[in-house]
Amino acid sequence: MKAHVWVMPKRTVLDPQGQTIQHALSGLGYAAVKDVRQGKFFVLQLEDWSREEAQAQVEKISREVLTNMVIEEYRFEIVE
Amino acid sequence: MKAHVWVMPKRTVLDPQGQTIQHALSGLGYAAVKDVRQGKFFVLQLEDWSREEAQAQVEKISREVLTNMVIEEYRFEIVE
Repeated sequence: MKAHVWVMPKRTVLDPQGQTIQHALSGLGYAAVKDVRQGKFFVLQLEDWSREEAQAQVEKISREVLTNMVIEEYRFEIVE
Repeated sequence: MKAHVWVMPKRTVLDPQGQTIQHALSGLGYAAVKDVRQGKFFVLQLEDWSREEAQAQVEKISREVLTNMVIEEYRFEIVE
């Protein structure tokens, strides 16, 4: 079983990496790209857990390990 | 319109960030997490492009700007 976890800067938080990319794209002629947000994406390979356990454990892992809850938010899905 | 872009280390490339997280999780008791791969996730806000233009332009942006093709691979989707 696998989990996919997305960790993004909160909407209210500045995203300097995303802004830098947006400016670079604008300079390269991609003016149609009005905003860029950059986050992290994790693929976790899981063994031994039922789907219900995986759901609960990946929720904990996302909140306690992968995400800085002060400035980031997460979502995840269990796949396969 | 929006684009979602995933940029991941190629399967053949070591992923030290992912390995560090996997070791940390193992130490925290999450031994069921056998492997972690960490990549980047971008959300691009697009204006003025048709769906076909967006498909072509985001392909170019992904390949030329967001991805280091030597060590990373990408996929993307156009949404909304």
